Amino acid sequence: MKLAFIGLGNMGAPMARNLLHAGHQVTVYNRTPSRAKALAPGGARVADSIPDVVRDAEIAITMLADDAAMNDVLGSGFVGALPRGAIHMGMSTTSVELSRQLFGLHDFGHQAFVASPVLGRPEAAHAGKLWLIMAGAAANVERCRPIVDALGRGYTVVGSEPWQANMVKIAMNFTLASMLETLGEAFALIGKSGVDPLRFLDVVKNLYQSPVYNNYGAIIADRQFEPAGFRMKLGLKDVKLALSAAEAENVAMPLASVLRDHFLEGIARGYADRDWSAIAQVLEEHAGYIPLTATKPAGESGSSE
Amino acid sequence: MKLAFIGLGNMGAPMARNLLHAGHQVTVYNRTPSRAKALAPGGARVADSIPDVVRDAEIAITMLADDAAMNDVLGSGFVGALPRGAIHMGMSTTSVELSRQLFGLHDFGHQAFVASPVLGRPEAAHAGKLWLIMAGAAANVERCRPIVDALGRGYTVVGSEPWQANMVKIAMNFTLASMLETLGEAFALIGKSGVDPLRFLDVVKNLYQSPVYNNYGAIIADRQFEPAGFRMKLGLKDVKLALSAAEAENVAMPLASVLRDHFLEGIARGYADRDWSAIAQVLEEHAGYIPLTATKPAGESGSSE
Amino acid sequence: MKLAFIGLGNMGAPMARNLLHAGHQVTVYNRTPSRAKALAPGGARVADSIPDVVRDAEIAITMLADDAAMNDVLGSGFVGALPRGAIHMGMSTTSVELSRQLFGLHDFGHQAFVASPVLGRPEAAHAGKLWLIMAGAAANVERCRPIVDALGRGYTVVGSEPWQANMVKIAMNFTLASMLETLGEAFALIGKSGVDPLRFLDVVKNLYQSPVYNNYGAIIADRQFEPAGFRMKLGLKDVKLALSAAEAENVAMPLASVLRDHFLEGIARGYADRDWSAIAQVLEEHAGYIPLTATKPAGESGSSE
Amino acid sequence: MKLAFIGLGNMGAPMARNLLHAGHQVTVYNRTPSRAKALAPGGARVADSIPDVVRDAEIAITMLADDAAMNDVLGSGFVGALPRGAIHMGMSTTSVELSRQLFGLHDFGHQAFVASPVLGRPEAAHAGKLWLIMAGAAANVERCRPIVDALGRGYTVVGSEPWQANMVKIAMNFTLASMLETLGEAFALIGKSGVDPLRFLDVVKNLYQSPVYNNYGAIIADRQFEPAGFRMKLGLKDVKLALSAAEAENVAMPLASVLRDHFLEGIARGYADRDWSAIAQVLEEHAGYIPLTATKPAGESGSSE
Repeated sequence: MKLAFIGLGNMGAPMARNLLHAGHQVTVYNRTPSRAKALAPGGARVADSIPDVVRDAEIAITMLADDAAMNDVLGSGFVGALPRGAIHMGMSTTSVELSRQLFGLHDFGHQAFVASPVLGRPEAAHAGKLWLIMAGAAANVERCRPIVDALGRGYTVVGSEPWQANMVKIAMNFTLASMLETLGEAFALIGKSGVDPLRFLDVVKNLYQSPVYNNYGAIIADRQFEPAGFRMKLGLKDVKLALSAAEAENVAMPLASVLRDHFLEGIARGYADRDWSAIAQVLEEHAGYIPLTATKPAGESGSSE
Repeated sequence: MKLAFIGLGNMGAPMARNLLHAGHQVTVYNRTPSRAKALAPGGARVADSIPDVVRDAEIAITMLADDAAMNDVLGSGFVGALPRGAIHMGMSTTSVELSRQLFGLHDFGHQAFVASPVLGRPEAAHAGKLWLIMAGAAANVERCRPIVDALGRGYTVVGSEPWQANMVKIAMNFTLASMLETLGEAFALIGKSGVDPLRFLDVVKNLYQSPVYNNYGAIIADRQFEPAGFRMKLGLKDVKLALSAAEAENVAMPLASVLRDHFLEGIARGYADRDWSAIAQVLEEHAGYIPLTATKPAGESGSSE
Repeated sequence: MKLAFIGLGNMGAPMARNLLHAGHQVTVYNRTPSRAKALAPGGARVADSIPDVVRDAEIAITMLADDAAMNDVLGSGFVGALPRGAIHMGMSTTSVELSRQLFGLHDFGHQAFVASPVLGRPEAAHAGKLWLIMAGAAANVERCRPIVDALGRGYTVVGSEPWQANMVKIAMNFTLASMLETLGEAFALIGKSGVDPLRFLDVVKNLYQSPVYNNYGAIIADRQFEPAGFRMKLGLKDVKLALSAAEAENVAMPLASVLRDHFLEGIARGYADRDWSAIAQVLEEHAGYIPLTATKPAGESGSSE
Repeated sequence: MKLAFIGLGNMGAPMARNLLHAGHQVTVYNRTPSRAKALAPGGARVADSIPDVVRDAEIAITMLADDAAMNDVLGSGFVGALPRGAIHMGMSTTSVELSRQLFGLHDFGHQAFVASPVLGRPEAAHAGKLWLIMAGAAANVERCRPIVDALGRGYTVVGSEPWQANMVKIAMNFTLASMLETLGEAFALIGKSGVDPLRFLDVVKNLYQSPVYNNYGAIIADRQFEPAGFRMKLGLKDVKLALSAAEAENVAMPLASVLRDHFLEGIARGYADRDWSAIAQVLEEHAGYIPLTATKPAGESGSSE
């Protein structure tokens, strides 16, 4: 298939590579051009603008950091240049509201929109082992199947309206952040009380029998918060998406508020670019279990990118 | 081995049966005698007092609801009647503080104490598939091995001081309760927003790949809060154990406080004897997603048993 | 002075009246014209558009519900029609961010901006007993003095940059909402435990000796949540302003998050148009002290106006 | 009147002095004898044991740190030595549960119990300007009137059962701690955002017009957390009393949980003996507005005294 791929970050670049490996014709675009050029040797055509990247696409994939980045793409002629009848497969973790807007814009442009955010960290993107959360009209979802095959270990179609996939993705990321906070509080107690954290981790692994707990439990026990698989500032962004989606439904989510507070506090301490599991470090500092690090470092990262 | 078994509730009864099946000589005692007599046909000797049940034991196992129940056993002559050189294997989820006291009492009585709380719901107790969290002097733990083989699918020795096993068990139950709150908040958002909860559950299963999430996710999605596998009032007890253990270490656990509030609220609504996963119902009521049930029902159950 | 007054709600209408009584020439505008016409017998000139209301003004006062309403005014030609050299005195409780934008817009329009949000409920507005929180260049603040004299019992100049007044106002409203939550939790405990709430209220009055506590304490003790002096949906708006302002500074405000959750829950139950002190009712329902009211009423009010 | 006074700390000592000044015969006792002897020059008889202090008393006053201290007094022969017909006036901030027990014990001893905890810091105790929260049988409360006159600026009788006074006192201290957290969060936002905290304080004073806000607002703005008027570890004790009283009624108090967490965190940082308003410092550290102080100082004070 003729594909356009916009957004070549930690996740997007390996995904685009897997699409090339699967034999698709892929045109790529990235705001920072060097990341696009790096894919040329693998067979990608490198476009130099948004209209250029999508003009021949059957399916245009976006894999961007946040709503603001998607809005930039919209403001650069995306909808106008995408051919009639094409599909926009939105794989970013963006807001429910933006998803509703995209549905309307593409309907107006005689195109289709399928929301398809993904679960998995960069390793899973490399390995083609993402899980896709898909929503859209059945026929459109079906047309995206070759993309799914190239990128994922599986998928769930969660509804016929694209925003539903964004809602599920946002709720899933909330469960992950809650797990990090949970483990962080538990490790702070275990460690400060004088129990070996690795023994605790062993019990966690044996109870949950889950690769997610195994992975994050080990990161926290070892305090391997750098390099980040998923940065804390993106974790804050996702918790804010959950709070915002819940607010629109008048749903209180007290854990999400606690997560937000601790991510904000971590960012105030200069952890914006550490892995989001560094929320455990904030908690261990609260407990006085590990020394508090300096505040207000030069170059404090804000929550907006 | 000659075993004493005290406490034949939902968990204790099937555990005692598995010890009989494994060929041990088991003397049993329960405050409500009928539950002890039910084990006689399976070969158990039924004792009519605490001193009677332990007087010949090599290992005396306690599987009781809470600290108060263990204190009743202590107040009925337990330590005095237990033979010198015997082991008390404490399998209840009780406080770190009580575990420290038991260590001292048994040391004074020339006996040994091994804390060995278990992970698993009644089904796992029946199937001999519990996970044991053990702590105590290595030689004593080793002597408990036949018990472990009869009751569990595995075990972790988390330290040489018995209280460490209680701390780990308390921290584990905190992680479970946090998972219930997390899923409850997520399901409230998903359901109220108009996404099919079973689709969300499917994604949860595929991300975590954990029997624990599969089990509780299904209970919440189906609202199968009765009959209870683990009652909300015991959930509150366990969260209070976590808060108390953490307080002794000057560790703040904000999620534990949120859990405590929601369990209290559930109990105020009359859910004390529902499964602790009914915390999800409290959250769906907050969200206005499902109707609020009546308050102050006749027979409101308090948090103390 | 020649004044323009935009926004004639519960607060704005009595404020405009007091300006007329003080002898000013006041031109008024309101989106719903009937509220403007009601001021004509008192001597106000009634304008029929934004440009019309401000075209001769020395000082243009805005007293609007929220950022969205102010943005509507901006989108209707406000800055273009306001004479050079005039002052925009923004008395609404709006965001820090909007205040910064207004500063820039008026600077560009060769006008001045003084932020001057007010403390006080409609009774205080009627009585000319508001407290004004002012910020702006000293000379501009000085020029607003006649307005202050007509409307307030006093004022505090909190800085020379207008946004600082909005920040202080937002922080003050946060302290008020926190007081409501605090009293709500305390009254729920007092009432459910069987102590006379009026005796408790007497102690509150004698400790704090504050008209604010006296007023709100009586409202809560009597459950006089209707008619609203300040509606819950506006309370939610203000808490969100606090969270947003704090987020921009990477400051966690856990109480603000609790307030947000309880306002959301109240709105989900249909209390959007009750007084914001009805947060106490949400808490008494949590406690099972007063019966829960029906959920999902016809006409559930959302958080956006 | 012949009075016994037990507990001569920061509050008790000036109270005993005021009773002497009012002309009463006062026998005093303190666990640390030097604090009792200091009152001898003022006319107090110094007793050397609990039975000695109360044996001739018409009214025995206790002013102790917590339940544990009161239990020590009970265990030293207090009830047995107090004459029949005497009144125990319990002025400590102790638990509702202990108050119920004292009622029963004194009833058994043919004595009476009046709970009468006080509002006010040490300055108010010196000045005889405390506010007394009283509960007990009307005739007994009436007999305590001369004490009230000597110590207080006023009193409220909140009920005929002594525990009701303790419940009200506990709820009042909860409102104070909530106010401290509220101001702490607000000052952190104000300060970090670049607004002058003293201007904010001015607005707080003008809105609330309350000596309590004036006093604590100034302490926080000036960071005068030492010497402590009321130590953080006592603040934690009082919040725990509120949580415990609320738990007995199945009442969730989310703010109380937040307060508990922040006091625990402050104590983990070594602030146990600072004024409880130092909760504001914890919040400013969270915000990165003031530098974090060292953790785990030598001599970390625990929450139990």
